Amino acid sequence: MSTSGHVVALCGGVGGAKLAFGLTRVLEPKNLTLVVNTGDDFEHLGLHISPDVDTLAYTLAGLADRERGWGLAGETWHFMGALARLGGESWFNLGDRDLAMHVERTRRLAAGRTLSQVTAGLTAALGIRHPIIPMSDHPVRTIVQTDGGELEFQRYFVAEQCRPVATGVRFEGADRAWISPALASALVWKKISAVVLCPSNPHLSVGPILAIPGLREGLLALDVPIVAVSPIVGGRALKGPAAKLMAELGLPPGLAGVAKVYEGLISGLVVDVTDEAEAAPLAAAGLPVRALRAVMITDEDRTRLALETLDFARELAARPARAKP
Amino acid sequence: MSTSGHVVALCGGVGGAKLAFGLTRVLEPKNLTLVVNTGDDFEHLGLHISPDVDTLAYTLAGLADRERGWGLAGETWHFMGALARLGGESWFNLGDRDLAMHVERTRRLAAGRTLSQVTAGLTAALGIRHPIIPMSDHPVRTIVQTDGGELEFQRYFVAEQCRPVATGVRFEGADRAWISPALASALVWKKISAVVLCPSNPHLSVGPILAIPGLREGLLALDVPIVAVSPIVGGRALKGPAAKLMAELGLPPGLAGVAKVYEGLISGLVVDVTDEAEAAPLAAAGLPVRALRAVMITDEDRTRLALETLDFARELAARPARAKP
Repeated sequence: MSTSGHVVALCGGVGGAKLAFGLTRVLEPKNLTLVVNTGDDFEHLGLHISPDVDTLAYTLAGLADRERGWGLAGETWHFMGALARLGGESWFNLGDRDLAMHVERTRRLAAGRTLSQVTAGLTAALGIRHPIIPMSDHPVRTIVQTDGGELEFQRYFVAEQCRPVATGVRFEGADRAWISPALASALVWKKISAVVLCPSNPHLSVGPILAIPGLREGLLALDVPIVAVSPIVGGRALKGPAAKLMAELGLPPGLAGVAKVYEGLISGLVVDVTDEAEAAPLAAAGLPVRALRAVMITDEDRTRLALETLDFARELAARPARAKP
Repeated sequence: MSTSGHVVALCGGVGGAKLAFGLTRVLEPKNLTLVVNTGDDFEHLGLHISPDVDTLAYTLAGLADRERGWGLAGETWHFMGALARLGGESWFNLGDRDLAMHVERTRRLAAGRTLSQVTAGLTAALGIRHPIIPMSDHPVRTIVQTDGGELEFQRYFVAEQCRPVATGVRFEGADRAWISPALASALVWKKISAVVLCPSNPHLSVGPILAIPGLREGLLALDVPIVAVSPIVGGRALKGPAAKLMAELGLPPGLAGVAKVYEGLISGLVVDVTDEAEAAPLAAAGLPVRALRAVMITDEDRTRLALETLDFARELAARPARAKP
């Protein structure tokens, strides 16, 4: 374990979970707070589904399917087949084992526990020692505004496969939400040395977290390096709609767009080695950039990128002048 | 199709479903109303589970597991394994495919449809042409009173495996329940020629149906044969706790107990050929008895018993004096 101090990492879907996995390999549970996007959460078939929480949990527990990119390895789909036969809604795939997570989460929430409490219990049952903290115990729902009207995130992402042209993104309920108690507690009581924005969609995965009132200001007030790892490699998102969405929202393509979304927040940006040239203008404009091998295939890739990202943060902390506005 | 007029059959679990299957093989959908016990229904893991409705539906659809005696043939149990790992309640087994029925039923009920409407939709999706009518759209819950306190039916039947000594049975909510609209409609508008009480537990499966206010009187007012098929063969229930429960409730053992429970209601009793001698005192006391091969192993057994039961009812209707009080 190679760092001192506590690290707060914000993450969303698959890419973020991979770096989070790496962080859990180099930081003790007491030194890491993993904050997860819940803007993708939705009610489906009467169940409370938290896609990003589950992706992170399955990844950390070593249960995630690496080929499909979501859900559990070795999953079966008998429930979905039977549901389709009954004429039920089958646009959102729920594996037989995965379903247990949703049913049990829904039951515990209905019994009055908070999403933080339920998540702590379920992830502990999976043998996960690092705390996974939902960004908020209050419902925040990511709504993609498109030329065909507003779409809840899963409708946009899964049912419509990101085809509609986006005109904006809003986070329903964010203005009334509080950050979750464990995150508030970490911000107040832990000696935080760095904040990492994992390689998740800046708008759709990290955006909802930063939309919770006070969090952005709270992170800046820590006065520690805030390092983003770019989800854009070679001008494209490794997974998901980040590049398409950014273009539709009028942002510069590629890394410049990522830097733009995080402007005023981050003190450093990790880019893939293949993007070093593209990152040069950002560095010239004063944003510290570190080019690393950012594509994570193996567990070793994840661990190495986590270590190198923390090294970068440590270097930024040691610099006399910080590139923050 | 060998009968004239409409038949109303009341049924509960596995044995009842087998005879109901036979009835569907000899009666057109328009000539049969299958009324199912919903006193076993319960909320579990946030899902509305209707065990007897599902047993009947799976049996009629040819999907039931014949060896295990409940649930779907070829079922898998990945959900239960994952649920147990999460520390969820695992005393009630829910198969991966079976789960679709409960999730979709719960969703449709939550959307405001009645249990009758939901059942009609789900059974039609399974290709079932004969109407399956829940006894009531209102919640009625069978409570077994035991020396250790009151137990909801599934707790008694599944979790406790009928071990506690029963002191009584009551049907929570029955006094406020109405019979389901389709049953009321059949009673009023159909030219009913016979009522069949399928070989289900008289107390726990047929009892809740007869506890709905007005139904018992309504059946008697039809002035048609009401024929019960005994679930007790050779002094034992073929399946389930009927014999044990009847003894604990102070009823005579065997057929005499069945006749006692249905006293004042039935105009004839079908018994197994092995019980003909035991049935002689009942016949001597004025209850018409027909000894038939009442153990149903094959589909042919089911169809034959259905035909012969309907024949018995026709003969009873033709008798000048009826053995009703």
